[in-house]
Amino acid sequence: MYKFNNLDQLNKRFRVNLINSLGGFKSVVLIGTKNKIGQSNLSIINSLFHLGSNPALLGFVVRPDVVERHTLENIIETNYFTVNHIKEDFYKDAHQTSARYPREVSEFEACNLEELYLDEFYAPFVAQSSIKIGMEFKEKIDVTLNGTIIMIGEVKVIYAPENIVSEDGFIDLEKAGSLTCSGLDSYHNTSKIGRLSYAKVDKEVTMID
Amino acid sequence: MYKFNNLDQLNKRFRVNLINSLGGFKSVVLIGTKNKIGQSNLSIINSLFHLGSNPALLGFVVRPDVVERHTLENIIETNYFTVNHIKEDFYKDAHQTSARYPREVSEFEACNLEELYLDEFYAPFVAQSSIKIGMEFKEKIDVTLNGTIIMIGEVKVIYAPENIVSEDGFIDLEKAGSLTCSGLDSYHNTSKIGRLSYAKVDKEVTMID
Repeated sequence: MYKFNNLDQLNKRFRVNLINSLGGFKSVVLIGTKNKIGQSNLSIINSLFHLGSNPALLGFVVRPDVVERHTLENIIETNYFTVNHIKEDFYKDAHQTSARYPREVSEFEACNLEELYLDEFYAPFVAQSSIKIGMEFKEKIDVTLNGTIIMIGEVKVIYAPENIVSEDGFIDLEKAGSLTCSGLDSYHNTSKIGRLSYAKVDKEVTMID
Repeated sequence: MYKFNNLDQLNKRFRVNLINSLGGFKSVVLIGTKNKIGQSNLSIINSLFHLGSNPALLGFVVRPDVVERHTLENIIETNYFTVNHIKEDFYKDAHQTSARYPREVSEFEACNLEELYLDEFYAPFVAQSSIKIGMEFKEKIDVTLNGTIIMIGEVKVIYAPENIVSEDGFIDLEKAGSLTCSGLDSYHNTSKIGRLSYAKVDKEVTMID
């Protein structure tokens, strides 16, 4: 068993990979935006988290570096962004959006991903994604501990194939082909073990699906 | 293709399952705590996210209900908590920790999970977990939009089996047996597609592992 407790003394690259692995398997999605003059932007994010169902809120972390700043600025400027799940057939293109493209380059075009506009929603969706979510910007939280920013948005519209949405609302992300990631750069498919019943005191949980 | 855009009008249970599915595959871990008089608590969390590597910060969302309030109060009272990855051989026990046990009941005992103390760290680890992380509480952010709370902690110590940590620091979470979850109650194993090289403009990403 390894024990790491003097993190300051680790080699920088080792430390970055190690710490990025600790959070477990993560949600990995593409965030689509467009600025006021029509320049689109697409960026891969692996820190998306569920914040609540009513109102329907999702959050994600933005680092104040060059790549993610375009996304951040576009959201603040226009109030809208999209969240698009990633499938195996375009995960390399999705990963490529993390390269440091200059502002005047759209990652949609540079990375062979199709920019799609649906029902007058301002921000662009990724045509290849099976689950597409239109979001309205709600709050920006500055985390003074390390200078990162937590962006919170409200779900305004969801597009998903009919055959993956269960009667109880659960979306079968495996059928959707959505991937998960670990660390900074590792992509994974999943295989379902089971859905479990709502847990109650003095009652054993059972497999519901 | 389904389109959902009047979320207010959806049946409540349908809406909760639907919205909880949108975030993609999520990190699912057990948070271990102990209050000042020695009462331990264990709670399952599926909103853990990576906030930064230097300092090494992880965040998670707490809902202000009965179950998670014990975790929240213990962390604020004592400043320490643990993050423990979940494996298939005890995922039902892990899920069971979400039942509404009264404060005087330890979920470790009620759910057959072994409470483990390592190297004088105040908060209890889960013996069965292959990846165990000791955390120091750093910041509590109140999200006024929906009354949830984002808790941020700093990684102080990491325990992991030697054979799952790569030379570059990447932890092979599949070898660790760590699970991912989707929605409120669905648990999944993963299978690796590949690790990709650092993305650069005008250079194709390649598989590095």
